[in-house]
Amino acid sequence: MKYILAIVVFLSFSFYSQAQKEDSLIIRKIFDESLEKGEAYNHLRVLCKNIGNRLSGSPQAEAAVRWTEKSMKDFGADTVFKQDVMVPHWQRGEREKATIFPSKSRNIIPLNVLALGGSVGTGNSPLLAGVTEVESLEALDNISPEAIKGKIVFLNERMDAKKANTFEAYDNAFMIRWACAVKTAPLGAIAVIIRSVNPSLDDFPHTGVMNYADSVQKIPACAISTNDAEKLSLMLKKDPSLKIKLEMHCKMLPDAPSYNVVGQLNGSEFKDEYLVVGGHLDSWDIGEGAHDDGAGVVQSMEVLNLLKKAGVVPRHNIRAVAFMNEENGNRGGKKYAELSLQNKEKHIAAIESDAGGFTPRGFFMKGDSLQREKILKWKHLFAPYMIHSFELEGGGVDIGPLLKQNTFLLGLFPDTQRYFDIHHNPNDVFENVNRRELQLGAATMAAMIYLIDKYGL
Amino acid sequence: MKYILAIVVFLSFSFYSQAQKEDSLIIRKIFDESLEKGEAYNHLRVLCKNIGNRLSGSPQAEAAVRWTEKSMKDFGADTVFKQDVMVPHWQRGEREKATIFPSKSRNIIPLNVLALGGSVGTGNSPLLAGVTEVESLEALDNISPEAIKGKIVFLNERMDAKKANTFEAYDNAFMIRWACAVKTAPLGAIAVIIRSVNPSLDDFPHTGVMNYADSVQKIPACAISTNDAEKLSLMLKKDPSLKIKLEMHCKMLPDAPSYNVVGQLNGSEFKDEYLVVGGHLDSWDIGEGAHDDGAGVVQSMEVLNLLKKAGVVPRHNIRAVAFMNEENGNRGGKKYAELSLQNKEKHIAAIESDAGGFTPRGFFMKGDSLQREKILKWKHLFAPYMIHSFELEGGGVDIGPLLKQNTFLLGLFPDTQRYFDIHHNPNDVFENVNRRELQLGAATMAAMIYLIDKYGL
Repeated sequence: MKYILAIVVFLSFSFYSQAQKEDSLIIRKIFDESLEKGEAYNHLRVLCKNIGNRLSGSPQAEAAVRWTEKSMKDFGADTVFKQDVMVPHWQRGEREKATIFPSKSRNIIPLNVLALGGSVGTGNSPLLAGVTEVESLEALDNISPEAIKGKIVFLNERMDAKKANTFEAYDNAFMIRWACAVKTAPLGAIAVIIRSVNPSLDDFPHTGVMNYADSVQKIPACAISTNDAEKLSLMLKKDPSLKIKLEMHCKMLPDAPSYNVVGQLNGSEFKDEYLVVGGHLDSWDIGEGAHDDGAGVVQSMEVLNLLKKAGVVPRHNIRAVAFMNEENGNRGGKKYAELSLQNKEKHIAAIESDAGGFTPRGFFMKGDSLQREKILKWKHLFAPYMIHSFELEGGGVDIGPLLKQNTFLLGLFPDTQRYFDIHHNPNDVFENVNRRELQLGAATMAAMIYLIDKYGL
Repeated sequence: MKYILAIVVFLSFSFYSQAQKEDSLIIRKIFDESLEKGEAYNHLRVLCKNIGNRLSGSPQAEAAVRWTEKSMKDFGADTVFKQDVMVPHWQRGEREKATIFPSKSRNIIPLNVLALGGSVGTGNSPLLAGVTEVESLEALDNISPEAIKGKIVFLNERMDAKKANTFEAYDNAFMIRWACAVKTAPLGAIAVIIRSVNPSLDDFPHTGVMNYADSVQKIPACAISTNDAEKLSLMLKKDPSLKIKLEMHCKMLPDAPSYNVVGQLNGSEFKDEYLVVGGHLDSWDIGEGAHDDGAGVVQSMEVLNLLKKAGVVPRHNIRAVAFMNEENGNRGGKKYAELSLQNKEKHIAAIESDAGGFTPRGFFMKGDSLQREKILKWKHLFAPYMIHSFELEGGGVDIGPLLKQNTFLLGLFPDTQRYFDIHHNPNDVFENVNRRELQLGAATMAAMIYLIDKYGL
């Protein structure tokens, strides 16, 4: 009996280590192919340089849909299709201007400014008003409305530079931008200027989505660069009576028709089960949406290619999804989950890449703890590629609505140090993406999909 | 007895966890200070923009010595001094040229070329000769001298793009550059052109040190960009009779006087024991020596500052060393070790930063295995900063000669993906350094020095 047990143990172990070895080899193939011959970087060049930025509802967003559909077909997906999505349609219009008028000098000073996404404009003529600086959203709770009424509020809250993971700081800072108008308008502010959500000092204003509430007056909201925020704060201390002239031509149009684009490798075994890799195709209307999130789209397409090149025959249906409208509505993500439910597609897991095409460090995860434990057992397979981090909670905006269907969510977690150099600002261009970093990210996602597809979750 | 033992265990544990907590707090202070108010980035701007590149023996290298000495004094070192070092003095002279002359067309094609460091020039008139492509150093062993004699050898060996850690690929590829002349001259080659040591395709030639041997004819050696290597290889297939005209004005001058610069925080307890953090002050004569290795120098200076700001009273003497001549001779590193021996300075540990000012990932280590185990016990203190990697073998060129004195060596191990975009080429400029990445590296070294100083090794 002991003897038989020993054989069983030996065989199990040998089977186990054989499987482990095969996994290592397949994953090595995936990384080799991606680093040496991967196409994500070339795809990103085309998306950035031939199409450029692509806000939901814009002609470029539609061009990006057509390009993605064609590219997925050319790149060897078994099935490619689109999903109809109605998206918000906001337009910046003529570029906004903000100018400081000192009270005792004619030396007017322009600011580096961008309207926040979704903001109303300043109407037929520019606003000219005094300015009240407020140090934080929280400080608004204790401020007297007299200090604010009829003024432009300058919300100079700093993003925390001390967090080693800049996304942790962003989780806190996001609310500054999101709530700036609804928190200041009820106090009588006629407009709000925020310090850009950026932990570093530079000259680039960062846009991003902001929120209105039906019950609250809609006031114009914009962001100035962190250097300009420092300058304005200093000037206000010397000259509290200075005024700012603000001119914004942005407006919200009726919802527009658009699409998610889906490319699929058909599963050989679990024909009604799905694994998703995705990123979002829309971007803000400045820069080229290279890291945010062209990177995620081309990496997701690359996953299908890398699996095929590594000779993987998927057991589940594997989908690369280019979601529309992550930046200002998440209509694409919501629509995808809605259709999944409607079509009774069982989504086992979804991976999103929407944190920049930087060196991959690991995965955010969200979902069932047993599934998480299963994934943690694969950590050693990622170690040769310096992928160590599997502790952080999170998934992605686009895949978020799948959580209700018990889909296990993962987010590719790349190095975060440079993200806020490019986030929602004109620096988010192809030249700021490194080929090796981008391709490593694609390989990391492909390796995870390979393991989930092989072993289930 | 059991009772007493329980108290002892409890007290030890409580003391242990108290110490752990203090360590976390000090390390947190170090990182906070570095990210929020650190000065390494500002120092690097001055070094790169006011002085620029600084090859050993050049006037800029001397300006860099003066600047470093002054900066270390201003930045609060207890003692600052220089060490005399005689250094090789190589000059590029007028910028080199390489041009393809097709055999059947007048359409000459210029190549992006750089002489390798230490190469002889082409003499009074340019070389014009036929070209033999060789795929690797190894292939030279089986080539007939007739194919080489009187020709320019084009050594088109690729650096392996598949290694996730580019330094692993560099360990192999280094020899291509180092040995290109001594391996081809004996076969009758009159010059050698190598494919730049770079895993990516781009237009930038990479220089770097190469070697001659006394017994072997010294022939001119240069590198062309990887894109040009692809182009030249294709052209040679179609037109094996093409010629290349090569013009190089470089020469070796007599050795020149220079210096290591040392800044010290005096130890309160172990007055003849030393811990070193260092980088090298010299750089190649193109670009600005920003990542290689201005970064290491300013990070090392920053370590002294961060320890002071965190209120650490060092038990050992802690030295920031700006070594001279890492790139083409390591005279500074050798001199430092020589003087350490002569002055009976016991060097416990040395950390070098010479792998670029990118996001820190961990440490290379070299030395006694018990010391290594002690360091591994501190891993969890680095985890909050996403510093995970403590497995790789290595230290640094400058600190290497200290190994014989049983100094434990560590090298800061940063992310390696972008290093060969800038390595020994014109892209190594301040603009390609990210402040947060640089400051995180300085904090990582300071944290390690804090722990070694506190607990010994």
